[in-house]
Amino acid sequence: MQLSRFGKKFTSDAGITSLMDDLGNALASGEDIIMMGGGNPGFLPEVEDAFRRRMQQLVDNPALFRRLVGVYDPPQGELEFVQAITAFLNREYGWSLTDKNVALTNGSQSAFFILFNMLAGESADGTFRRIQLPLIPEYIGYADAGLADDFFSANRPSIELIDDHLFKYHVDFESLAVNTDTAALCVSRPTNPTGNVLTDGEVEGLDLLARKSGVPLIIDGAYGTPFPHLIYGDATPIWNENIVLCLSLSKLGLPAARTGIVVASEEVVKSVSGINAIINLATGSLGAMLALDMVQSGEIKRLSREVIRPVYQQKAERAVALLSQLLVGLPYRIHKPEGAMFLWLWLEGLPVTNRVLYERLKSKSVLVVSGNYFFPGLQGEWSHTNECIRITYSQDDARVEAGIRIIADEIRTLFHQGV
Amino acid sequence: MQLSRFGKKFTSDAGITSLMDDLGNALASGEDIIMMGGGNPGFLPEVEDAFRRRMQQLVDNPALFRRLVGVYDPPQGELEFVQAITAFLNREYGWSLTDKNVALTNGSQSAFFILFNMLAGESADGTFRRIQLPLIPEYIGYADAGLADDFFSANRPSIELIDDHLFKYHVDFESLAVNTDTAALCVSRPTNPTGNVLTDGEVEGLDLLARKSGVPLIIDGAYGTPFPHLIYGDATPIWNENIVLCLSLSKLGLPAARTGIVVASEEVVKSVSGINAIINLATGSLGAMLALDMVQSGEIKRLSREVIRPVYQQKAERAVALLSQLLVGLPYRIHKPEGAMFLWLWLEGLPVTNRVLYERLKSKSVLVVSGNYFFPGLQGEWSHTNECIRITYSQDDARVEAGIRIIADEIRTLFHQGV
Repeated sequence: MQLSRFGKKFTSDAGITSLMDDLGNALASGEDIIMMGGGNPGFLPEVEDAFRRRMQQLVDNPALFRRLVGVYDPPQGELEFVQAITAFLNREYGWSLTDKNVALTNGSQSAFFILFNMLAGESADGTFRRIQLPLIPEYIGYADAGLADDFFSANRPSIELIDDHLFKYHVDFESLAVNTDTAALCVSRPTNPTGNVLTDGEVEGLDLLARKSGVPLIIDGAYGTPFPHLIYGDATPIWNENIVLCLSLSKLGLPAARTGIVVASEEVVKSVSGINAIINLATGSLGAMLALDMVQSGEIKRLSREVIRPVYQQKAERAVALLSQLLVGLPYRIHKPEGAMFLWLWLEGLPVTNRVLYERLKSKSVLVVSGNYFFPGLQGEWSHTNECIRITYSQDDARVEAGIRIIADEIRTLFHQGV
Repeated sequence: MQLSRFGKKFTSDAGITSLMDDLGNALASGEDIIMMGGGNPGFLPEVEDAFRRRMQQLVDNPALFRRLVGVYDPPQGELEFVQAITAFLNREYGWSLTDKNVALTNGSQSAFFILFNMLAGESADGTFRRIQLPLIPEYIGYADAGLADDFFSANRPSIELIDDHLFKYHVDFESLAVNTDTAALCVSRPTNPTGNVLTDGEVEGLDLLARKSGVPLIIDGAYGTPFPHLIYGDATPIWNENIVLCLSLSKLGLPAARTGIVVASEEVVKSVSGINAIINLATGSLGAMLALDMVQSGEIKRLSREVIRPVYQQKAERAVALLSQLLVGLPYRIHKPEGAMFLWLWLEGLPVTNRVLYERLKSKSVLVVSGNYFFPGLQGEWSHTNECIRITYSQDDARVEAGIRIIADEIRTLFHQGV
């Protein structure tokens, strides 16, 4: 088979492909693998019950069931849900959105493929512009999404060491410059893979810089506020005409429904919708129909803050406590867990690369993600990229504990063998 | 907002975008528009009931419901459904597929975006290859799906006139040549927009030509066999390692579930799955979970042949009869309706273009699709492209009749004004 340039690029080994292969096959195979790799949300009975009750309503009402499965949505997505999201965000945050500021996509990943490529890459005039990541490490799913090579530029963070075994990345504004080859800035908040939450000051700084430079600021809120609100401290949401805010229903508990939500200027929303129609014809209705009533009533906020967040926060605290106990005496640091569902573990001076550690853990039936995939656009060598792994703590507590014990054992073995 | 080359191309006026805008907004707005434009399937109580019963099972079973909404599928799609499709096709047709020959996508359109662009466009060596459509008119959704301009090549059909007011397109094998710039051949069967069903001989001829030329043959079976089997005569299904067969659950009654099925060589399936992971992370589970039991049991075949097909065939016959009665004395021809859910009406010598006719009908609240969009890759002028419209007959009979009366009135008015 002779592949095009696109075909070659998109079928060469991509981090996200191996991650999703691992994730999907582990969960689907029924084998006894401890899955701490992907970002599958945990199973929360109260949330599952809410969606099952809603689905029962849809089944009981033939007209609603028909909308759920039998009617193509317009390119912008299910209109009643778009209106509900608009009203909800305006109520919550005092924004002035209209339903022309919101588009749905088949998941966040699809939104990013569309947004990144409509903004960056080769222009009609032959110039080439990039998506700039002002703080790496940044989400693995971005890394391969560009239609062109050399699609990202990236800035190393400054690193704040906290106590003996924590650290936090910060945007290094001193070295951060937006050049003419920047098409847009993009950050995830909370950050995947680190669980970092950019401070309000950092986000304001990025917003100012983006507006001054005449480029959009894309904020990936897949783990953010108002839902699923996997933010353990305070973080003020922000939106204006220059910001493209991407939300998702996945981490709320609906990853298989594939519902991404783009909140942006009318111009951006119209472009995203049009491109979505060409690439996907229409967006699926499942997520929109399942979450409609809880968005309309505001219950989605209560579920996020009172049910979902506390579960993940406790999981994070337990995971940090256990890891800290098991790694005593070793040169480890954990990124301060401020949100999302990951621990980002930095093993300075590890005698092997994180890829080797990943493989060794996989052979012991524990899946994590090697940190090297999270540095798209990085120029130059940085040993840090080979010293970190991402550990998901969203699954069942007993499994997470078992996994962490195996991870800690392996790390201890490696450090001892290596010295 | 400064768009990339991709952004510009994919946001310029595309036929599929305006069609989906029309379709989605008409259905969602509640306005009294007679929708004979898009390809939304009709609402068939027996089919809807089957899916509602299945959904009730999923709601009643927490483990299944969790799989429906709460677990990311692997890049290839929901594994149990992939296995069920594989077994079903092998049982039905005696093929020797394994579950490595099947991948799911978020709808056929997404499959075509991936397939077209992984095969055609610019190659790593700088050469440029095209998707060749051996018989146009061909599906509007293909026209804009290429990442590059000038993405298609196309062959005009030969036209068989049948009786006074029917006609049928045939592949013109005499003028059909596959050149070094052909990346793949692609046909829809039944054909969207014409309701044509390529004969077994034509498909065998294309298969032979494709294999001889070393390029894949893509067969779009969105309306085809074994489901929804909107084929009113006989048509033998065909598959081999060189054929990429694309199926869909949409026309069965699940358009909003967005489920496309790619049946191809392991190599193609692996590529499609990998690209799907990068672009979409995962495929939604809804269609796979809803149709699983009817694929496993074979009930999907009975529903297609005994429930769905007869409904559409009757709708086609009624539509042809009414149109023929109302257009008496005018120079009209209808493509022989052999399948799908469209009438393709050819108005030779119409005093206005089909775009004008479309606009005039839209102002009278009847939506059709202007035929000019269905000729991607055509070289040179061909007046035929301005003389045809596509009329969907899938909706409620009374509405279809009302729509056809308005269409016929308008055509009569135009012919009389024009002469």
